[in-house]
Amino acid sequence: MASKKSTLAATALRALRRKLPGRVSVTQAARFKASVDNLRLSFWPDAVVRVEAAQEVGMVLKLAHEYGIPVTARGAGSSATGSAVPLRRGWALDLTALDGVKIDRVARIATVGAGVVTADLQTRVERAGLFYPPDPSSKKYSTIGGNIACNAGGMRCVKYGVTRDYVLGWSGFLADGSPVQWGLPLKKYVSGLNLRDLWIGSEGTLGVVTEAHLRLVAKPEQRWMGLYAFKSESSALRAVRELLKAGIEPSILEFMDCQTVACAEAYTGKPLLSDTSGVSILLIELDGSAGELRKQRAALRAFMLDRTVAQREARGEMQAEALLQVRRTCSQSMYSLGDTKLNEDVVVPIEKQAELIRYTIALKKEIGLPTPTYGHAGDGNLHVHIMYNRGDASQSKRAKRGIKKLMRKVVELGGVITGEHGIGLAKVPFMGLQHSAAEIAAMRAVKDALDPKGILNPGKIFEPFEVWDHEPVAVKFSWDH
Amino acid sequence: MASKKSTLAATALRALRRKLPGRVSVTQAARFKASVDNLRLSFWPDAVVRVEAAQEVGMVLKLAHEYGIPVTARGAGSSATGSAVPLRRGWALDLTALDGVKIDRVARIATVGAGVVTADLQTRVERAGLFYPPDPSSKKYSTIGGNIACNAGGMRCVKYGVTRDYVLGWSGFLADGSPVQWGLPLKKYVSGLNLRDLWIGSEGTLGVVTEAHLRLVAKPEQRWMGLYAFKSESSALRAVRELLKAGIEPSILEFMDCQTVACAEAYTGKPLLSDTSGVSILLIELDGSAGELRKQRAALRAFMLDRTVAQREARGEMQAEALLQVRRTCSQSMYSLGDTKLNEDVVVPIEKQAELIRYTIALKKEIGLPTPTYGHAGDGNLHVHIMYNRGDASQSKRAKRGIKKLMRKVVELGGVITGEHGIGLAKVPFMGLQHSAAEIAAMRAVKDALDPKGILNPGKIFEPFEVWDHEPVAVKFSWDH
Repeated sequence: MASKKSTLAATALRALRRKLPGRVSVTQAARFKASVDNLRLSFWPDAVVRVEAAQEVGMVLKLAHEYGIPVTARGAGSSATGSAVPLRRGWALDLTALDGVKIDRVARIATVGAGVVTADLQTRVERAGLFYPPDPSSKKYSTIGGNIACNAGGMRCVKYGVTRDYVLGWSGFLADGSPVQWGLPLKKYVSGLNLRDLWIGSEGTLGVVTEAHLRLVAKPEQRWMGLYAFKSESSALRAVRELLKAGIEPSILEFMDCQTVACAEAYTGKPLLSDTSGVSILLIELDGSAGELRKQRAALRAFMLDRTVAQREARGEMQAEALLQVRRTCSQSMYSLGDTKLNEDVVVPIEKQAELIRYTIALKKEIGLPTPTYGHAGDGNLHVHIMYNRGDASQSKRAKRGIKKLMRKVVELGGVITGEHGIGLAKVPFMGLQHSAAEIAAMRAVKDALDPKGILNPGKIFEPFEVWDHEPVAVKFSWDH
Repeated sequence: MASKKSTLAATALRALRRKLPGRVSVTQAARFKASVDNLRLSFWPDAVVRVEAAQEVGMVLKLAHEYGIPVTARGAGSSATGSAVPLRRGWALDLTALDGVKIDRVARIATVGAGVVTADLQTRVERAGLFYPPDPSSKKYSTIGGNIACNAGGMRCVKYGVTRDYVLGWSGFLADGSPVQWGLPLKKYVSGLNLRDLWIGSEGTLGVVTEAHLRLVAKPEQRWMGLYAFKSESSALRAVRELLKAGIEPSILEFMDCQTVACAEAYTGKPLLSDTSGVSILLIELDGSAGELRKQRAALRAFMLDRTVAQREARGEMQAEALLQVRRTCSQSMYSLGDTKLNEDVVVPIEKQAELIRYTIALKKEIGLPTPTYGHAGDGNLHVHIMYNRGDASQSKRAKRGIKKLMRKVVELGGVITGEHGIGLAKVPFMGLQHSAAEIAAMRAVKDALDPKGILNPGKIFEPFEVWDHEPVAVKFSWDH
């Protein structure tokens, strides 16, 4: 049986090479590169196909469907959950060469290849006087295809929403290689079942997106940023709740707990704010017209007057970028606390964030491992981390126990186990916490309907996997500092 | 076979009455009322079930699934496409009693029963200092459940988007009666496959929504409105393109062609603008803070200076409402041109709108029937009508030929056959113009996966139906003037 399967795979690969000469690579280097993503677990594909035109994706899928070969589409491989790795071997489908961008300034729609890097799109859109808001922290590397596959979020969602809110339509291919067009470059579209949105966040398990039509908005005239230190997490999170209630509309509203601030300060070698220690921080951006900004800023300053222990306002774009950079280094800086990170992008209702933080602090004591937490407090989307040393069996055991308890708590608070990373491999153990058996069965029925042979990114979302039982590989990505 | 089926249906109905005493009605009056929607074709259900709590929907579906009884969910019945009528008999599921509303001002989320009338929700939200933008022209009657089922649009989409853009999550029931929760009252959610959005616009064919979590936004401080007359359709539509390009951001941008203006003027008995005739009109609303509004208004006035033949600005809310009322009467006023209306809510790219209007004018000549057109020009979403007298065989034939030609033209222009009404029964003949066989097969596969017995709103979207071959019934709805 196994030999029949491998003979078929070899036949399929030969057919693929004939169909797409020059696109298929089976070198060690190419296969290793396509075997990992930012989760850093490695599963080798049999071959890597680097398509150079959308219709080649159809050709690849047609063959894969015929021979039953797993296909895992990928862009930059910056997924935090393993959603881009070819768990069941087969073909890794590299979409990064699909990098066309066309901007319609009247309709305010960008038509973008799946391989376009998010930050590059933003730069081009801003040059046209417009704005594409979704800004996952990976945006300098991650691609639009990956952003759609994971419904990427980021810091500006509090005001502008997530990737899904900007997808008007896209073209791509079904599992059997048939081309499909779900939605068009139009502002309204309700023809037939909404398979456009079904694909969003489906991590390449339902089909492959090759080109998307994205809604653009007016570029904010001005931006302004401030950093606020609070004596405790609970006072910072109370401020979040109250400022939203007061009608202040930040375009960024980030929270860093005391553990995170300490990590970042140790990493950069300097305090985020002079004369403070043991503080918790809010990073707040306002944007809009000069008039609006003046009003909002005055309201924010008055609001913060008695609440903070220290604060710093950015003078100009460069200082603002420096403050943002502090927030962006949080993720890396935590490796001073352990060689392994469990990173959970949970969401809880805004008014439950303080309770979640109290829980992470209690959990830290209980499991004896650091639980630094930061994230998008305006959305209730906090990144809770458990840091540990993988070589230490006791730590590993405690980390695993801690993460399971955390996820139960999140669901108990009315939250969700993932707000912007997706399930991939990393969140699979928690699907049953979030969803009923009927819900999971309905999802699987839809998956099976669209991918009857199960060739699209097999093993993800639904099948058992425990990330902590797998050994990460040593790999240096372009985004590692 | 037929008798076995009817025995089963009788058994099922008895079981339903036992389970839900007081909820089931089989009177002529109740059944007739549930047999029609705004398409005005009548298909009688066997019974009407008026649920009073969400879990009763689960009980109804469980029984219907067991006995294979068609279930057609409905709210106000304001669907323009027949999506709310029980084409295959069975049970009409009246959701209007699910009318709870809860508003979270901090998170800016409303949790709303499927039966809540859209305008009532808007009033309550505005009382809380917030804003729920989607505003289908049926909003004084239509319900949130129906808005989600059709992904309703309306006039403010040009700035604020459609219903889908405000749905964060909802609870409801699968075809077999299992409760599901797709999404939560949270700003970010990417757990598992995105069945939340798949349901949106699915016209009750995939499941039944009983409660939704809707995103709210800040209430605009001020609004302002102007009416602009142009000497021709093409000059009005050129203005649309140029004002969008110039960065003016209307919250409403409506177009009425000369035929529509003439109808409305005949209907109300007075010209929309003094000293004009044979004009085409743009109705423009701006909203925002006082400062923003001042700037945008100045820009709009300067922009319009040399372009219009007449204009009128609303002084205050009442005058603005009067201008909007003009637009809202367009639909009714057309019945002076014929007793039957084919109403197509097509969308074309913004820059193709002028070409579409030229086509409707040519079509008018070709088929010898009026083709009045108005709609949401900021979205490219124009409502093209063909008015005729059904009793006249020649007119009926020409209307049918005209509508088919129109739809082909729309698709040829890169447009979509429906932007906010959905397919229902009325657009079924055009599905094949819009979608490839593979696309339709994929949609059907998803439908079959979630509703394997085909009990949910059977006959809609996918099955052959020619609306013009069916006789409408005389019915007076609360929205008829």
